[in-house]
Amino acid sequence: MNFFHYDIDSLYIEDVPCQSLVEQYGTPLYVYSKNSIIEKVRAYNQAFKTIPHTICYALKANSNPEIVRLMASLGCGADIVSCGELALALQAGFSTNKIVYASVGKTDDEIHAALAAGICAFNVESRQELAVIQEIASSAGKIAPVALRINPDIDIHGHPYISTGKSLNKFGVDINDAPDVLKQAGNMSHISIVGVHAHIGSMIMNPEYYTASLQKLGTLIDALRREGVAIEHVDIGGGLGVNYKSMVPDFADETITPPTPAELATAVLPLVQQLGVELFMEPGRSIVGEAGMLLTRVLYTKETRDRKFVIVDAGMNDLIRPSLYQAYHQIVPLHKTGQPREVVDVVGPICETGDFLAQKRSMPTVERGDFLAVMTAGAYGYSLASNYNLRPRPAEIWVDGTTSEIIRERESID
Amino acid sequence: MNFFHYDIDSLYIEDVPCQSLVEQYGTPLYVYSKNSIIEKVRAYNQAFKTIPHTICYALKANSNPEIVRLMASLGCGADIVSCGELALALQAGFSTNKIVYASVGKTDDEIHAALAAGICAFNVESRQELAVIQEIASSAGKIAPVALRINPDIDIHGHPYISTGKSLNKFGVDINDAPDVLKQAGNMSHISIVGVHAHIGSMIMNPEYYTASLQKLGTLIDALRREGVAIEHVDIGGGLGVNYKSMVPDFADETITPPTPAELATAVLPLVQQLGVELFMEPGRSIVGEAGMLLTRVLYTKETRDRKFVIVDAGMNDLIRPSLYQAYHQIVPLHKTGQPREVVDVVGPICETGDFLAQKRSMPTVERGDFLAVMTAGAYGYSLASNYNLRPRPAEIWVDGTTSEIIRERESID
Repeated sequence: MNFFHYDIDSLYIEDVPCQSLVEQYGTPLYVYSKNSIIEKVRAYNQAFKTIPHTICYALKANSNPEIVRLMASLGCGADIVSCGELALALQAGFSTNKIVYASVGKTDDEIHAALAAGICAFNVESRQELAVIQEIASSAGKIAPVALRINPDIDIHGHPYISTGKSLNKFGVDINDAPDVLKQAGNMSHISIVGVHAHIGSMIMNPEYYTASLQKLGTLIDALRREGVAIEHVDIGGGLGVNYKSMVPDFADETITPPTPAELATAVLPLVQQLGVELFMEPGRSIVGEAGMLLTRVLYTKETRDRKFVIVDAGMNDLIRPSLYQAYHQIVPLHKTGQPREVVDVVGPICETGDFLAQKRSMPTVERGDFLAVMTAGAYGYSLASNYNLRPRPAEIWVDGTTSEIIRERESID
Repeated sequence: MNFFHYDIDSLYIEDVPCQSLVEQYGTPLYVYSKNSIIEKVRAYNQAFKTIPHTICYALKANSNPEIVRLMASLGCGADIVSCGELALALQAGFSTNKIVYASVGKTDDEIHAALAAGICAFNVESRQELAVIQEIASSAGKIAPVALRINPDIDIHGHPYISTGKSLNKFGVDINDAPDVLKQAGNMSHISIVGVHAHIGSMIMNPEYYTASLQKLGTLIDALRREGVAIEHVDIGGGLGVNYKSMVPDFADETITPPTPAELATAVLPLVQQLGVELFMEPGRSIVGEAGMLLTRVLYTKETRDRKFVIVDAGMNDLIRPSLYQAYHQIVPLHKTGQPREVVDVVGPICETGDFLAQKRSMPTVERGDFLAVMTAGAYGYSLASNYNLRPRPAEIWVDGTTSEIIRERESID
């Protein structure tokens, strides 16, 4: 199913022409397809229906309260990383026994709050954190459920900022040290080991990386069992790649097909079944990434000796991924008019050379007053937005069939 | 004058020990030395006192309302880049005849608002923008004062994101096209050309780049005069470098001495005097950058096979410069205890490998519960802060002699 398409010459999201959205809500504007999100959750559940599994939605990808509530209503769990996300997850109605808490920097206050809420597991990142949780749990008279985060030392060959499972990253416990750490944990009075966890990175385009990670975790779990340590769940993290290049086939320079939840299941199901544990997953981007786009107006076009620039009203404060990760987002016009293509830089209004949405991009020619859609902006878009240059953060809306609804108001200058 | 120093073993900002600030206000915490800011403005005014000049503070560097009000009270003008900054500048009490408006992406609404406010000059970036301003001014029955932004094609050899005056950047009008554009502007009924402007980039460590830029502008101004076009002011932009490496001599790996306003004056005064125009400058970082620091608590330390990590409670949502620009900030402990040095990565709590404050940095050994000061965080720190990972933005305080005061409350989770 594709929730974005041209009808004759107009770009639609579900059954709504994008032009009507920019007219009604203004730009820059984040727009999400509600049914795209629902469909992704369905695809995950369908793929893993034969085994006990929990999909813990990674709130950091997009923490719009309505989207988070939708996830809870679909029966998902929550992968949280801060006290703010804990508060939102509780408010949104997730079962606390489906909330996992991952962060290399949990503060004492955050550990207290998560213990009080009765979450399902702390994904623990180090020996020291284990000791701190033991101490806090002990003082609070609680048992802290812990899944040890293992660093399996797997290189996913992505951007250095999105690789998290190599031994030089800050995350997790070295897999060779894990047996010793788990043994230590087993002797702690207020720690209960419930699982093992690995998150190897983002934008993973080959499910075999998960197989490799799970094999390492499986070996560990087997060894623990031989020593009498029962592991209830294995958490393979998130990170499944999405389509940043060809969400709309028209104008795509390159067609890519990221792995589906079904392909992920093919890669990991046999191993999980063999282990006989519950599977936890922490998808974020792969659920909301493709569902969102950022609509923007062309303010000016400008030709210099070396380049042509399309200056739009969305900047790096609205979407920092191109600037921060050199990320590629497909950009398409709201109207196809058979216009010739040209190579341009699409840049924002911010006073920085780093403020760009695309560089040296072949695109249909656009003019002042036209609108563009920056595709696949549903994840790590609004969640990283700032007020840089004192710009109000954009509005967020979602579309459900023929209707649209504001799910976060545009900030005002006040 | 150095507003940051160790007294025996404790780090002070002005006359206040930093330890007392973290105890009183918590962490992460932005702290500014008020007198450092005042001293920088004084140095600028002293350096240029022999000629008519206006220091337009670049609000985007740090738009804390109290800091902005201080700038207005010191007689500065304002360099603004958005409607939000215009509103703040007006509220802070800047004279409208000292407000210049620079942005490659001024929207129609923003142009209307700036015209209505009666600002001193629009720094205009393209022919099309000139036409748009003419049209809006005409419909509003106003004359728009314009300084044409020239792209002098000068390479400052900095990070690609901070270079703005090369011909492949989005900024300004090619210097070779400038005479023609200015002639065109001269024929527009609602445009008044008042100046020429060039901003060549950031973190400029050699004042001779300004000389080179000004020479090009001077040639242009002379040519215009021969054609009867009077230019009232020349605006050399901002961009003077600051000291990111050795604000506190103790522990500095490398001592650097950025150019002073006096050295800038030596480089540009003779040329400006010869031209007989008023000088506008747009410093931001060079006024507030060194005045600020980000205080943070060590949450955990962690050793992996390859690295040692110091995990602190300030993340890329609080200070994104290291991640976005690979920027170096000196980091020092609040207490010197003669501890040995070690090489560490200082990383934040955010679930991203890109969330770091320093990599492979030789620092005094620290432990859980210690505090660190990230120096030279006064510019492009808080102004780029986000709520990523649903983290509240930190508090901002300033210190004046022996007293401290909150100038922006810490955000709350609600």
